[in-house]
Parts: sequence; structure tokens; C-alpha cells
Amino acid sequence: MKKQVVNPYSVEGSIDYDKLITEFGVKKITPEVLKEIQGFTGELHPYLKRGIFFAYRDLKKVLDDFKKGKKFFLYTGRAPSGPIHLGHISVWLFMKWLQEKFDVEVWFQFPDEEKFLFKQDTKWEDIQKWTHENILDVIALGFNPKKTHFLIDTKHAGIMYPEAIKVAKKITFSSIKAAFGFTDSNNIGSIFYTAMQTVPIFLPNILNKKNENCLIPLGIDQDVHFRLSRDIVEKLGHKKPAIIHAKFMPPLTGTEGKMSSSNPDTAILLTDSPKEVARKINKYAFSGGQPTIEEHRKKGGNVEVDVACQWLKYFEDDDKKLAEIYEKYSKGELLSGEVKKILIDKINEILTEHQKRRKNAEKLINQFVWKS
Amino acid sequence: MKKQVVNPYSVEGSIDYDKLITEFGVKKITPEVLKEIQGFTGELHPYLKRGIFFAYRDLKKVLDDFKKGKKFFLYTGRAPSGPIHLGHISVWLFMKWLQEKFDVEVWFQFPDEEKFLFKQDTKWEDIQKWTHENILDVIALGFNPKKTHFLIDTKHAGIMYPEAIKVAKKITFSSIKAAFGFTDSNNIGSIFYTAMQTVPIFLPNILNKKNENCLIPLGIDQDVHFRLSRDIVEKLGHKKPAIIHAKFMPPLTGTEGKMSSSNPDTAILLTDSPKEVARKINKYAFSGGQPTIEEHRKKGGNVEVDVACQWLKYFEDDDKKLAEIYEKYSKGELLSGEVKKILIDKINEILTEHQKRRKNAEKLINQFVWKS
Repeated sequence: MKKQVVNPYSVEGSIDYDKLITEFGVKKITPEVLKEIQGFTGELHPYLKRGIFFAYRDLKKVLDDFKKGKKFFLYTGRAPSGPIHLGHISVWLFMKWLQEKFDVEVWFQFPDEEKFLFKQDTKWEDIQKWTHENILDVIALGFNPKKTHFLIDTKHAGIMYPEAIKVAKKITFSSIKAAFGFTDSNNIGSIFYTAMQTVPIFLPNILNKKNENCLIPLGIDQDVHFRLSRDIVEKLGHKKPAIIHAKFMPPLTGTEGKMSSSNPDTAILLTDSPKEVARKINKYAFSGGQPTIEEHRKKGGNVEVDVACQWLKYFEDDDKKLAEIYEKYSKGELLSGEVKKILIDKINEILTEHQKRRKNAEKLINQFVWKS
Repeated sequence: MKKQVVNPYSVEGSIDYDKLITEFGVKKITPEVLKEIQGFTGELHPYLKRGIFFAYRDLKKVLDDFKKGKKFFLYTGRAPSGPIHLGHISVWLFMKWLQEKFDVEVWFQFPDEEKFLFKQDTKWEDIQKWTHENILDVIALGFNPKKTHFLIDTKHAGIMYPEAIKVAKKITFSSIKAAFGFTDSNNIGSIFYTAMQTVPIFLPNILNKKNENCLIPLGIDQDVHFRLSRDIVEKLGHKKPAIIHAKFMPPLTGTEGKMSSSNPDTAILLTDSPKEVARKINKYAFSGGQPTIEEHRKKGGNVEVDVACQWLKYFEDDDKKLAEIYEKYSKGELLSGEVKKILIDKINEILTEHQKRRKNAEKLINQFVWKS
């Protein structure tokens, strides 16, 4: 088994999430926390019930404040350098649900310099193309255009850079080295970058002359940016952001590491055709089944390592249906190929709808991109 | 004697300019180069004749190109954090002369983040105030508003940051450490900064869709920024900038180090009153004279260490008059107080005129600040 590595620039190994909770100093989402959320939302999002969002920082404070009438805004982001895959959208779908349930603003950052700075062979023009493509996908997820604002780092540098330098002044290279494992061979843009990722924590309050809390839903690999900057933004007179952390959706090929667009066998892209979806899942989805049908019928499959079963946690919202699939697969009543078929149909249903909305997204870009 | 230190963040000791030429790998301005310049300008600026501008990189190439009809633009800058003193303006007065003689554009950068990032106790609001004040002084020097463009880093970050990251990607922290003597305790904004200072080398050509040469007149302490980035801009498909280097105008208090606004005894500010100018020069200007009048009349003064004599190189344009003063002072015919009086009158004549124009500068800001 590979050593566990979890930071914005590398996710490797079989992830022990309890260990991460201790290492990162975050809190586990307990049944009490879920109950508190449910008090506002009426129902719980499947990702909460299923432990996909599993940890937090300061979330209870945000909920307490909300009860007292103090709003929050949501902030997350996407560093463009390739197509969007299914692993990306879980955080965003959950954020969309939060937006609807709490009726709050969403700030979505597209740090179009990040991958350019961190991947040696990326071309600026390609990143710009992917920024545009990624924007279309995020719009197609169905965020409320009146309450959702896109910040694109190089487009909005005029409002972001003046704030980023205030953050940057308070971070030494020593801290960066310790937090991200950088060396003297890192380029100076990559060293500066975390300051830009910090800005949307407080920029919306400056732009809107408000004083709302900031809640960041993110994959836990991104936590380090804010571990570093939470104290700093407070020193600058802003609120510490709250964070709610997601686990990684496993790659098609198995439950270690993280899905990646640069390895197309491990991921399904939002633009994949139904045929492509079926091909990838049938060919690559790691199976928790037994070597022969006979053995499978007898011993049953392992839902914990079966990627089709694991992925259904993300896409089959109906708890009863999901439990039934898991039970039948465990008992050997469902074969791996049959679970794969269920997943393929589910994903294709979602993607067909998504791709339809995506065709209309171009016209909506202007409504989403922040105008300063 | 203090050890010689010359970089953008520290100038100390008695400066050996010939040693700098070797250390920095720049070329000395020879009589041949002067002749070549004179071929275009008709006459030579006093700062050229007097060796105040003393070294260069690629200047001959720019002149060769100019002869063939290829224009250049001028780029220099000012990092605001306090008032402008007489030591600052020598480079700018010379640049203004170049602008007039060659009929070229001037790009003037106000990197309003630099001092904020490098001086721990600077406040953002103060820097913004000084940016405004410094702009007034630069305008009052009389640059052609139709051909002079101000870039203010945080105001123009929208056009500068996207280019700065392309530069930054090509500079490792190792290079920065070697070039500027930084350590891991440097903040990440200061580490990134040189990328922003590099951008005006090529941004004007992007904005104006031109392909002109870039010539940078600067104090030699700033050379390291461009030593580092000349090769990089070339890799990005832009031209290497040419540079013409100035010596430091000595502080009032003696010929070591560099004048500084933060030590008001060493500098005369552009906003000083005639009375203040007289007081500072009489009180602080280091004298090359003898201990008693009798001895001075007999042995004469030393023009090389007498700050009043040295400063007159900057402000008395008439070669004959200057030579006469030097001769008389060397022979003891002029006393230190008398040379100081000549200098005081000269500076007050210049400052009275400057302060008059400065009152009108506010109205002109809009004409100078680049509109993108």
C-alpha cells in the first residue's frame, strides 16, 4: 500500500480519513452536527448522510450565526488545466444544494494561473481554453446566476492582487515550505500563489460592503491553503473562513489516490458520450466481485472496494435503492456487471441532462462573471 | 570605510563604480558611445558629460536600431513609500531629456506594492497616499503627457499580473536568493515582486501592438532585477531591454551610501521650502574645506568630497560656471559657505519652479495614468 500523501499538489495512497482529521486538526461531522444542519435544511443531502462530507472547521459557528440572522457566503474553486470529471463535481453539487437550502451567495474562483505555474509543460493558451470550457460545465450544474459570481484570477487580478499582497506580506517562504513541501527550486509564482487563493475568503465582503461569514466546501487536499491563511485573514481584520471537507471520489481503477483528468482511464469526463461512459466503466471500474460467477453467487461482492458501488454513493440519491443494491451485491444476488450497468445508466442520465444544459451555458457566462 | 553593498534593498559604503562595472558585467560609457549619442541629440546632457550616467547594457544596439528607423521606449519607475528627494529626480530629468531628444514614449511604473512588501512597518494607506504625492512630483518634472504613461502596479494589476506570472514561472527561488540575498524568512510577496518589475519591459509593446526596443535609465542598484529577467523576457518572445546606469547622488552628509527620505538630514525633498533647503545644506552638507578660513585660503578645498560641489554637478548645467566654481574652491578662493550659498540658490530656483508646476499636476493625473 502506498504511503498516504494529501496536499493540493499530490494525493496518493489509500486515504485514512480519521488520520487526516487528527493530522489536519479538523473536526469530524458527528450526528449532532448533522442534526443541526437538518434544523435549517429540513432534509440532509445524501453526501452528508453518507459521510462524503465528513469534517469541518468552524462550521458550527457559522450555523450559530446563521440562526441569529447573520448570513454566510460559499466559496470554492477550480484550477483549470483540463476537462472536468465526475470527481470534481461532487463538491459543487453539494455547494449548489447549500446555496438553495440557505439561500446564499456562491463565489466560485477559477485560478487560471495555478496549474500554469505548477505544471511545467502547460501552455498559457491551453489554460485559457480550459478556463472557458470549465466555466461552461460549472454553469451547466445549475447554480443560481443571480447569486453566483465567478472570479477568474488573471481577469480579476485588478481587484485580487491588491488584496493578495496584504496576505502575502504575512507569509514567509519558511511557512510555505513547511505547509506545501516546496523547495528552493519552486518558481516564484507558485510560491506566491496561495495568497491569491486566500483572497476570496474576504473579497466578497469588501466588494459588497458586507460582513458575512465565509464557508468553503472543498476536497480535503485543499485544506492546507486555509490552514495557513485562516490566522492571517483574521490579522488583516477579516473573519476566519469555515470549511467543510469532502473525501475524494475514488478513481475508476481502484480506491487509492484521486481521480485525474490527465489519466483518462481513471475518470469520466462531463463531456463523455454514453458509449464512452459504458466503455470506461466496463473496462476500468475496479470490481469487488469474485473471480467466477459461481463463487460470486456464493460469497458475494465487496462493496467497500467495488468502485461501481462506491460511485453510486455519489449518484444514486435514493437511500433505499442504494441500500438494496449494496445488500444484493454483498449477497451475490447482483453481479459486478449488473452493478456497473446500474451505474452506467445513472451517470448517462445525469450527463445527458448536463450536456444539454452545457449547450446553453455560453449565453450565461456574462451573468456569472463578476463585473467590478 | 564600510563594505560596498549595492542592491535594490541596500546601498552602503563608498561606491567603487569601476568595480561595479566588472561585478555586474555592464559596459562603461566611453567617449565613442557619447559621440554616438551626440550624433542623434546634437548636444550631450550634462549627466553624460560628467559621468553621472556611466554604464550600460545593449545601448549601442538600441542606437543602431534607432538609426535604422526602429524606435525605442523608455521605462523607469519609483516605488512609493515617502517623499521624493533630489537624489531621485536625476534619473528622471535625464529620461525627460531622452524623451525630448529622441521623441519617444516614456513608461513610468509606480510599484506601490514594493515598499509595502519589503518594509515591515509600512501601512497600505500610507503607501497609497505617497503614490499620489509621488505622481504629482513626477508630473511636475514636465514629461510630455501625450507620450508618458504611468503604470501603478495595484491599479494595473489586471493587465500586469497575467504577464507577471509568465515571468515568474521561469524564476526559481534559488535564483532570487542568489540575486537579491533573500532568505526563507522573506515574505512570499517580496519573493514574487521582481516579476512585476519585469513586466513593463514588454507590456507597452503588447498594449500598443508594437515591437520597439526598451531602454531603462536607472540607478545601478536596480540593475539586478533586469540582470535576472533579461534572459527570461527573451525566452518569452520579447526583446531584452537595454539599460543605462546612473551613479548615486551622494547624501548631504557625505559621499558614502545613498540619499534616503527616511533620514531627512541626508536629503532635500522636492517639497522643502527655501528656508528648509538653506538650513539643511548649511547644517548637514559635508564640507571639503579646511578647518579654518586661513588654512582654506592657503590649501584650498577638496571638490571630490565636498557635497555642495558634488551636487552642483547635478544642478549647474553650465559647464563653464561649474569649472570655475571647482577651480576657485580648489584654490581656496571660494569658501565652503560660499559654495553652499551657490548651491542653495540653484536648488531653490529649481524647487520654486517645481513647486509651482506641482500645484497644477493634480489636474493632469488622468492624462498620465494608463487607461486599459
